[in-house]
Amino acid sequence: MSKISNRQLERYPIYLKYLLSVRNEYNNVSAPMIASALGLSIEQVRKDIQIVSVREGKPNQGRNVNELINDIQRFLGYDSLDDAVVIGVGHLGKAFLNYKGFKEFGLSIVAGFDIDTNLINTKINNIVIYDLYSLNSVISQLHAKIAILCVPSDVAQQVTNRLVNCGIKAIWNFVPVHLDVPEDVVIENVNLASSLAILSHRLNKKGD
Amino acid sequence: MSKISNRQLERYPIYLKYLLSVRNEYNNVSAPMIASALGLSIEQVRKDIQIVSVREGKPNQGRNVNELINDIQRFLGYDSLDDAVVIGVGHLGKAFLNYKGFKEFGLSIVAGFDIDTNLINTKINNIVIYDLYSLNSVISQLHAKIAILCVPSDVAQQVTNRLVNCGIKAIWNFVPVHLDVPEDVVIENVNLASSLAILSHRLNKKGD
Repeated sequence: MSKISNRQLERYPIYLKYLLSVRNEYNNVSAPMIASALGLSIEQVRKDIQIVSVREGKPNQGRNVNELINDIQRFLGYDSLDDAVVIGVGHLGKAFLNYKGFKEFGLSIVAGFDIDTNLINTKINNIVIYDLYSLNSVISQLHAKIAILCVPSDVAQQVTNRLVNCGIKAIWNFVPVHLDVPEDVVIENVNLASSLAILSHRLNKKGD
Repeated sequence: MSKISNRQLERYPIYLKYLLSVRNEYNNVSAPMIASALGLSIEQVRKDIQIVSVREGKPNQGRNVNELINDIQRFLGYDSLDDAVVIGVGHLGKAFLNYKGFKEFGLSIVAGFDIDTNLINTKINNIVIYDLYSLNSVISQLHAKIAILCVPSDVAQQVTNRLVNCGIKAIWNFVPVHLDVPEDVVIENVNLASSLAILSHRLNKKGD
């Protein structure tokens, strides 16, 4: 399998969203249709589809919508549920615990962790919040592989080290710091501060 | 001013965070110090600093930490507060309304908007939630320029059109759809579904 860029990977959920929205309307979609709806080039859409699907599109008929949905879901790993835990139950952590749409993306949140005694042993959206100090024993029972990291910056690396020791294999990092992890651990950073910086800088430049 | 890439812009909040964390410890920082702490190349750090700061670093002494903090904050527009509104007060919208750290990034949330009558005219973190149908009159009173968009996908474009008509100049978009805006409106997309897709795909590939 050839190496796929992040830019490319980012497009698949967008294809998926589009295909799910038109599945009741059309049986087949063509690359030009998708490209036009999503503001992408036809060539790009063709390439992206070829990567996930071994099926051949019929000339002038395009692809079967439901088959293409299945292909993309399997490619992204959405066809099987990965168990995830939320580490740090502040405002953002709470939002993730409450969000009911993750199953659509192959993610099932099975526990939260915090050090706040007011939160420990309570439930949010029917998900138990555990004491962060019991991380080892709880994670090994739950067999979770993904951690959604929402802790304060100054403890992020220390908590990450503990997650790695517990066998966590993927970290979705919302803390705006650089984290060191072993090579076999996957990390995906979402830096909202950086995203806001881009917006703010561009807005201020417009006013010049 | 030369054009700055998003990659580059994304680094400035990371520099800022680091500098704020060491300001009590050091008076001066050098590019090699910053590079080593953040896992970046020295050359990259030097270039990034030169863009925001006209001041010269003294050889072997580096830059004054507080001056560099001020330079970056001014560059990113954090030295003046921009008023922002949250559109759509679901779980994510609530998390933003509750977050007290935005002022650090030059953002002040002044109102929320939703169509849920149970939310309208209530306050979250002392910020009033207004009826989305009163958008025009409220925004023109508040003079807000930035909207944080957290509405359901199927109404995102329609709500965006209304925001643009109200004079909103920047949209921080958390809805995973492509939005059309006029050229003078800045848009920054944060697609959590795409970010999760990258993580999920990489995790599943590891297991192959």
